[in-house]
Amino acid sequence: MTDLSKGAAWMGGQIIPIADAAIPVTDWGLTHSDIAYDVVPVWHGAFFRLDDYVTRFIASLTAGRYDIGMDHAAICAALHDMVAASGLSDAYVAMVAARGRNPVAGSRNPRDCDNHFYAWCVPYVHIVKPEAATKGTSVWIAKSVRRIPADSVNPRVKNYHWGDFTSGLFEAKDRGFETTLLLDHAGNVTEGPGFNIFAVFGDRVVTSDHGVLHGITRRTVLEMCAEAGLATETRALPLEEFWEADEVFLSSSGGGVIPVAQVDERHFSNGAAGPVATGLRARYFDWIMRDEHRTPVRTS
Amino acid sequence: MTDLSKGAAWMGGQIIPIADAAIPVTDWGLTHSDIAYDVVPVWHGAFFRLDDYVTRFIASLTAGRYDIGMDHAAICAALHDMVAASGLSDAYVAMVAARGRNPVAGSRNPRDCDNHFYAWCVPYVHIVKPEAATKGTSVWIAKSVRRIPADSVNPRVKNYHWGDFTSGLFEAKDRGFETTLLLDHAGNVTEGPGFNIFAVFGDRVVTSDHGVLHGITRRTVLEMCAEAGLATETRALPLEEFWEADEVFLSSSGGGVIPVAQVDERHFSNGAAGPVATGLRARYFDWIMRDEHRTPVRTS
Ligand SMILES: Cc1ncc(COP(=O)(O)O)c(C=O)c1O
Ligand SMILES: Cc1ncc(COP(=O)(O)O)c(C=O)c1O
Repeated sequence: MTDLSKGAAWMGGQIIPIADAAIPVTDWGLTHSDIAYDVVPVWHGAFFRLDDYVTRFIASLTAGRYDIGMDHAAICAALHDMVAASGLSDAYVAMVAARGRNPVAGSRNPRDCDNHFYAWCVPYVHIVKPEAATKGTSVWIAKSVRRIPADSVNPRVKNYHWGDFTSGLFEAKDRGFETTLLLDHAGNVTEGPGFNIFAVFGDRVVTSDHGVLHGITRRTVLEMCAEAGLATETRALPLEEFWEADEVFLSSSGGGVIPVAQVDERHFSNGAAGPVATGLRARYFDWIMRDEHRTPVRTS
Repeated sequence: MTDLSKGAAWMGGQIIPIADAAIPVTDWGLTHSDIAYDVVPVWHGAFFRLDDYVTRFIASLTAGRYDIGMDHAAICAALHDMVAASGLSDAYVAMVAARGRNPVAGSRNPRDCDNHFYAWCVPYVHIVKPEAATKGTSVWIAKSVRRIPADSVNPRVKNYHWGDFTSGLFEAKDRGFETTLLLDHAGNVTEGPGFNIFAVFGDRVVTSDHGVLHGITRRTVLEMCAEAGLATETRALPLEEFWEADEVFLSSSGGGVIPVAQVDERHFSNGAAGPVATGLRARYFDWIMRDEHRTPVRTS
């Protein structure tokens, strides 16, 4: 039997070890970063909010004009089969649509390409190590780059255009920070590599609405806030206002709610995880186990 | 013997058929479009301006912090070996540096990744079919997107962030145009998928300087203009000024100088290839055969 414990991929209906999963160097998915993707977490044997993630993925396919010849049910079936075969009970599960190769030599017509779907899973990814997340992580606001604007590449179609994030990550890592946050060209706070960002002002929780991915974890946070009696605002969040926050936290499918103790040289909530963020983090790990959000991996 | 006539790739020192060349689905080159690349043409058995292309590629590696462990000579040797093995005498030759996989599971640190180099070649690509190029091609100015700004992703590091171009290409192809041209956020003309753009005003030739790749063909055009007694200006080119041009043309390693007969509903040079562009096109096909620019493929 093949060892799939390091991860598995679903490619053209076959389930293969993650190390063997590759795409051609001439696929537009690579050469034009012409990809829409999504990532759903599996936690203790069940997908979290599977339908919401797959619905977002399908919205991305429509917006990006990818025709993969698979519907919601077929995509879910592929994910179930792959995760079940991998044996992973906590997993990072990616579903990907690539523009594919262009059968017409030299053609620049995206409408000619053979779009295709594939998926892969690896053991669950925490974008910030849980120990560091619990204490509150550190964030560097990128100085050399601004987030790619929404009228250049649509951030609501989850995509691999990460050049701005990578520049920001180099800046952050060079200075010993855990991760990076990008501003838009108007000076508003946007998002970072793999997460949305929230600022807490008393019992008000604010997150950016424009120029960012509408994260499923972001949506979960907004719903958890309602449950917890916190007011929420989704709107532009100018950097000057952000500096005045009582607390700051990140949201990501890779780790849930992640408190932030430091941004640049500024310490938030006395340089520790703040109480609102800590409460929402615990609530997230509770929500992710609630039956109504869980779709157990079919191991038929 | 393997058939390499459809193209070949150099991967880890091996030369393989292009159809077999692939990169892992977890390579940051794919998942973060974290790639710097370059493309040099081979024409009638010789590379054109090989040193200039490889020098630009190495500048991209430095700017993007890719360490591929190969110097100018080693890169050239790989390209020679690959093209010679392919047997192609007219080829599109890509050299690529990818960030690679991150050996630390879940790490978001670009400094941890295993950067790597590969190359591939296919029969020469004309971005516009020669028959259409000779008559003058058609260009659609994208309305739904603006070029990714230079302070988000550096356009002088040749990269695969083509989401803006792809949106523009869909617009263009839906309307029956050959290709697309993008404006920047200030309303200046920038570049298109695979080419720089030039506007001719009498004996003055203007091309954008900022927010674009400094194409080697663009440089060749500027040098050919000097030889032909045409004045050149490299600077911002506002759309309003562009509309007043006598002629418009594109420059690309995939076809040289390509006259433009139509942009949106506006016909230039009476809806045909203009005399300056036609002259420069002929001159390019002359220059590409000049010994001082040619490095014959080593077929030892
Ligand atoms: C750019 C970006 N923003 C936000 C997020 C958070 O989205 P979600 O909560 O759906 O994981 C991600 C997730 O990877 C992302 O890549
Ligand atoms: C975005 C972009 N601009 C301009 C060019 C033209 O550059 P060169 O003349 O070096 O081919 C290219 C070439 O592919 C390109 O991709």
